[in-house]
Amino acid sequence: MSDALPAPDTTLADLGEFALIDQVARIVGQVAPGEDVLVGPGDDAAVLRVRKGHVVVSTDLVVEGRHFRKDWADAADVGHRAAAQNLSDINAMGGRAQWLTVGFAAPPTLEARWALDFVRGFAEECALVGAGVVGGDVTSADKITVAVTVIGACTVSPVLRSGAQAGDVVALCGRQGWSAGGLAVLGRGFRSPRVLVDAYRRPEPPYGAGALAAEAGATAMIDISDGLLADVAHVARASGVGIDIESATLEVPEPLLAVASATGADPLTFVLGGGEDHSLVATFPAGAALPEGWLRIGTVTTPGDAGPAVTVDGASYDGPTGWTHF
Amino acid sequence: MSDALPAPDTTLADLGEFALIDQVARIVGQVAPGEDVLVGPGDDAAVLRVRKGHVVVSTDLVVEGRHFRKDWADAADVGHRAAAQNLSDINAMGGRAQWLTVGFAAPPTLEARWALDFVRGFAEECALVGAGVVGGDVTSADKITVAVTVIGACTVSPVLRSGAQAGDVVALCGRQGWSAGGLAVLGRGFRSPRVLVDAYRRPEPPYGAGALAAEAGATAMIDISDGLLADVAHVARASGVGIDIESATLEVPEPLLAVASATGADPLTFVLGGGEDHSLVATFPAGAALPEGWLRIGTVTTPGDAGPAVTVDGASYDGPTGWTHF
Repeated sequence: MSDALPAPDTTLADLGEFALIDQVARIVGQVAPGEDVLVGPGDDAAVLRVRKGHVVVSTDLVVEGRHFRKDWADAADVGHRAAAQNLSDINAMGGRAQWLTVGFAAPPTLEARWALDFVRGFAEECALVGAGVVGGDVTSADKITVAVTVIGACTVSPVLRSGAQAGDVVALCGRQGWSAGGLAVLGRGFRSPRVLVDAYRRPEPPYGAGALAAEAGATAMIDISDGLLADVAHVARASGVGIDIESATLEVPEPLLAVASATGADPLTFVLGGGEDHSLVATFPAGAALPEGWLRIGTVTTPGDAGPAVTVDGASYDGPTGWTHF
Repeated sequence: MSDALPAPDTTLADLGEFALIDQVARIVGQVAPGEDVLVGPGDDAAVLRVRKGHVVVSTDLVVEGRHFRKDWADAADVGHRAAAQNLSDINAMGGRAQWLTVGFAAPPTLEARWALDFVRGFAEECALVGAGVVGGDVTSADKITVAVTVIGACTVSPVLRSGAQAGDVVALCGRQGWSAGGLAVLGRGFRSPRVLVDAYRRPEPPYGAGALAAEAGATAMIDISDGLLADVAHVARASGVGIDIESATLEVPEPLLAVASATGADPLTFVLGGGEDHSLVATFPAGAALPEGWLRIGTVTTPGDAGPAVTVDGASYDGPTGWTHF
């Protein structure tokens, strides 16, 4: 078994299922073996040593043409993004990601290097938090489809979406609107501002900030994948509260101002509507000291007659607020 | 939220992502809530209570047109099969399946009932072993693609593929060749023998037999998904041994004889080459009492000069032995 990558024109069909699995297992073992993995990829199931306590599990699908385009991000980028999106779900529970499985379906004509670069990017993102790939499956499909499941542990009680109470402070941690700005740039055929395009290709979730928030007594938490207002609305509904966002507290970074100016858009729409930076929003009891990196952006309110709702500066907001899959 | 299924002509696009998720969560909660689930579907991650010990995790992809055809099996059947295939991986470790996540990608034009019937069949299969669906994801795709991850626990040490030793007895538990017979029937446009078609549509893995084998001291174990000889070869390679299967010990059921006769095939090819019944093969120390339901079918041998290999009645076998995905 050679360490060399297959030649550029080698397809998955050329490489074969079992050679692909061997190469993937090798990459994964090199980059981030993961802790407490007694048996990794290669048997009927991975065997993991768990400490008694709470385990958190989440799963996500990534489909070519829906969630990524091969001409907008290279294979390693797509790997980083797919991992980040899942690691972020564990972050949003206040947990620490430990183990991931990856189901990889792709056309037999796909260059084997794309698949292996994807795996390497994926494993490298996992390594940022000390997590490792412990299992997977490969099969053929018309379009690249990646299914990721992440398993993590919580040292304190997991923070759900449903615990926000009227009077709580709403706080944000991480970049917000950058990925949406990058997507807007790519969608118009441009490649700059580079910092936004990079933020779309490789989001930088505030790993660890979720656990800090949990220890600081956060009452509810979610990661922003659909959009700030859309995800805050999930918290409002689950908690049965209103949430008011104060727009003046939201930072609009310089490169977003440039994109907004070039496209004629209100720069705030990127911040309020953008997802996929995988920043975190949490609610904290009034008066609680916010952990480092967290900024107050609003208040939890008693829901009005119309039920749980999100307002911006006390009024309803009609701009873009995320999207759904069907 | 109504208990009624959507009207037959309602598509996933009509129903919408969040209504679909609500309905899925309701079905899953009704059929098989699962043990030790502190938070089920609906938050960023499920929260599970684990006992200190070994956790086993496996993942599989099921793609329309590759792993199932909508005209060969109804939605509930496809759900049963997808669950069985994953539950079987935990069975093959000697574990007990507890929790599953399901990623479901489908065209927006898919009838919502298909998706919900799938989920119901899936959850019903899980309920057979006391396992429950704790999380998932839905997205749109050109073809139905289902990604399943299953998490289980082992009360004794997990049984790997790599522990077989020369002199061990090879034993089989469960039906073998029935699903392949059913597939052969369907592939020729027929619907009978019904018992084989049913075996293809809803395999009946010997749940619990894996844990019994582990307790009885099995040295290696695998479930038969690719084919008896193909999967036995995985054990031979992982263990560095030879394995000889004695064909006279293999049961060829009556309906398989009928299919073989009608198609001009050797009935033994279904038994030796067929997969997807999710029967189990394990090796036991010579002289060990085999648990109920297990039948001796061969012997573990010292590998010859050519390395680990599988033989049938002492000779190499050239018939069909499974298939690969690329």
